[in-house]
Amino acid sequence: MTAPLRNRRFVLVARPDGLPKQSDFRLEDGPVAAPGPGEVLVRNHYASLDPAIRGWLDDTPSYLPPVALGDAVRASTVGRIEASNAAGYAPGDWVMGLNRIEEFSTLAPDAFMHRIDATLTPSVTHYLSSMGAVGLTAWFGVSEIMKPEAGQTLLVSGAAGAVGSMVGQLARLRGARVVGIAGGPEKCARLIDRFGFDAAIDYRGRDLDALSGAIGAACPQGIDLVFENVGGIGLDATLLHINQKARIILCGLISEYNGARHGTRNLWQLIVKTATMRGYLVSEFVDRFPEGSQAIADLIGQGKLVFDEHIDDGIDQAFNAFMRLFDGSNQGKMLLKLI
Amino acid sequence: MTAPLRNRRFVLVARPDGLPKQSDFRLEDGPVAAPGPGEVLVRNHYASLDPAIRGWLDDTPSYLPPVALGDAVRASTVGRIEASNAAGYAPGDWVMGLNRIEEFSTLAPDAFMHRIDATLTPSVTHYLSSMGAVGLTAWFGVSEIMKPEAGQTLLVSGAAGAVGSMVGQLARLRGARVVGIAGGPEKCARLIDRFGFDAAIDYRGRDLDALSGAIGAACPQGIDLVFENVGGIGLDATLLHINQKARIILCGLISEYNGARHGTRNLWQLIVKTATMRGYLVSEFVDRFPEGSQAIADLIGQGKLVFDEHIDDGIDQAFNAFMRLFDGSNQGKMLLKLI
Repeated sequence: MTAPLRNRRFVLVARPDGLPKQSDFRLEDGPVAAPGPGEVLVRNHYASLDPAIRGWLDDTPSYLPPVALGDAVRASTVGRIEASNAAGYAPGDWVMGLNRIEEFSTLAPDAFMHRIDATLTPSVTHYLSSMGAVGLTAWFGVSEIMKPEAGQTLLVSGAAGAVGSMVGQLARLRGARVVGIAGGPEKCARLIDRFGFDAAIDYRGRDLDALSGAIGAACPQGIDLVFENVGGIGLDATLLHINQKARIILCGLISEYNGARHGTRNLWQLIVKTATMRGYLVSEFVDRFPEGSQAIADLIGQGKLVFDEHIDDGIDQAFNAFMRLFDGSNQGKMLLKLI
Repeated sequence: MTAPLRNRRFVLVARPDGLPKQSDFRLEDGPVAAPGPGEVLVRNHYASLDPAIRGWLDDTPSYLPPVALGDAVRASTVGRIEASNAAGYAPGDWVMGLNRIEEFSTLAPDAFMHRIDATLTPSVTHYLSSMGAVGLTAWFGVSEIMKPEAGQTLLVSGAAGAVGSMVGQLARLRGARVVGIAGGPEKCARLIDRFGFDAAIDYRGRDLDALSGAIGAACPQGIDLVFENVGGIGLDATLLHINQKARIILCGLISEYNGARHGTRNLWQLIVKTATMRGYLVSEFVDRFPEGSQAIADLIGQGKLVFDEHIDDGIDQAFNAFMRLFDGSNQGKMLLKLI
C-alpha cells in the first residue's frame, strides 16, 4: 500500500471564549503519518459533530482531557483501515472510534475503537447516528433510566435534535405522553408530523413566563419525567411544572455551553417536589452498546422509529457544520463527510 | 377556664419583594377566640423560625398553600392546651404542631399536631430543634439518604446552622470526613471546636474562584456527598469538586430565596460526573418521626451530639429574629419565645 500524500486536519488553535469563532480553528494540510508498530491508519469517511465537542475545547477538568492546542479536534468517526500493524485489524475493515476531525488518523486502537459490520445497515453513517452514541444515549436513557410508563408525561428539550427526537419516539413506544420543546415552527411541526410527539412547544420568542405558560398548557397533568438537553430558561420553566417525585435526566445543557450562563434558578422546585436530577453519560452503558445498537436497528427495521441525518460535505465545512449545533440550523444528526 | 383576653399575632400584610421588610408584617392585638366544637385552644410558648417560612410568604405554587395576607405567619410551635373540645386533648397537655406565630392558636387538631412528652427532655424547645423538624431533617438525610461511610468526604453548606451542624456530626459518627462551609471566622471555629468537623471554609469575601480553591484544598480526595442548604456561588464552587457518582442532597437554597437569583451555573458537572442531585423534604419520613426523635435524644444523652439553640424573647421580636436567618447572626437553631 502507498500511503496517501495529503491529510487535511481541523485543528484547534485557540480556546473559544463563548461561541466558537472561525479563527479558533485552522485547516492544516500535511503528510499522512505511516502507522508505527501496533498502530493502524484509518481513512475517516464521516465524523459525528456533537455538542459534547464544545466541552472538550475548554481547558476545564472533565471526563476526557481537553483537546490540545495545535491538535485536531476530537470526534467520533467511521472509517476504513488503510494499513495495519495492529492485531485484529486488517486493511478494508470498517471501524468506528473516538478519533479526530481529519481525513486520516494514525493511532494505536484504543478502547473506543471497534470494527463494525457495514453490511448491517443501509449506510455506515448510522453507526454515528441512530446506532451510535447518539442513538444509544436515547436508548439507554429511556429504557434503563427513565423507564416511562403509560399515564406519565415526559418532556424533552432539544426535541428535534438527534437525541431528543429518538427519546420522544422511544418514550411513546412505551406508552408515555410525550411533549417536546424545539426552536421554530418547522421543527415543531416535524415533532408532531414526523416523530409522532403528542405536543410541541416553540421556545423562540418566549421569555420565562411565556414558556412556562406554554409548558403548563401542553402538560395539564404536570411533568413526571424530563430529558434535558438544553438548560437555561427552558429548564427553569420546565421545573415550575414538575410533579412530585419527578425525575430529570440531565443529558446536555447546550444553551449554557457558550458565553454567559443563565444558570438554573428554579432548583428550589426539586426540593418542594422531592424530585431528582441525574447527570447522564452514555458511557455508563459502554458494556451494552452492541445490545443497544441492535435494538435500535430492529426498531428502525420494523418502521417503529425514524431517524434523520444532516450531512455536510468536506472537511473545509467543519466549522460551519459544527456551528449548526448552536444555531439549530441542522435537521437531524449532524455529520460531516470527510473523504 | 377563662379565656385570656389578649392575643398578639405576627401578621403578614404584604408579600415580600426580595428580602422581607418590617413593613411586610404587622403585630396585631386582638381577642382570643374560644374553641368551637372539635377545636382546641393552644398557648404557644415557642415558635420555630425556619428558612422554609420565607417560601410560604410568596404566592407561588409549593408543597403548602401560601400564608394568606392578613393571616398570622405559619410556623411550628410548642405549646400547651388551654381549653379543648377535641377528643384526645386535655387542658395542660403539651403539643407541637404547624401553627402560627401568635400567642394563642384556636384550631381543630390536624395531621401536624401531636402531643409531646415534656418530661423526656430538659426543655420543650428541643421538640422544635434537635428532636423536631430540624434535627429530623439532618437525621433522615444522613441515615436514610446519604448513608456516608468511612473513606468518603461529605461537604455541608450552612454548616454552622441548625441542620448543617447536626448533619456534619452525624456523618462523622459514621466515619466520613466532614467539611463545612460557613460565614465568618467565629462560625468556622465553632465547626471545628464545638461540632468536630474535619475542616471549615469561610465563604465570606470569597468569589467563585477563591471559594473553589478553598474547597479543593479542604477536599483533596474530592467530594462524594454534598448536603446543600445554601445554593449560589457556594454550590457552583462545590460542583467543581465532586467525584464520579457524587450524590447531592438539595435541602435548602437560602441564598436564593430573596431577590435576584444567582442561579446554578455548573450543573454541567452533574453530567460529566454522572452525579445526582435530589430534592429533600423531611416530610418524606413523617411516619418515622418518633423513631428519629428518639435516636437523636439518645445520641445527645450519650454526649455524642451537641446542639445549640438561639432563643429570642417576645413576639415583638418576631421580625428581627426571623431576619437573623438571612444575615446569619444566630448561633444555633433560631427560636422565638412567645408567651
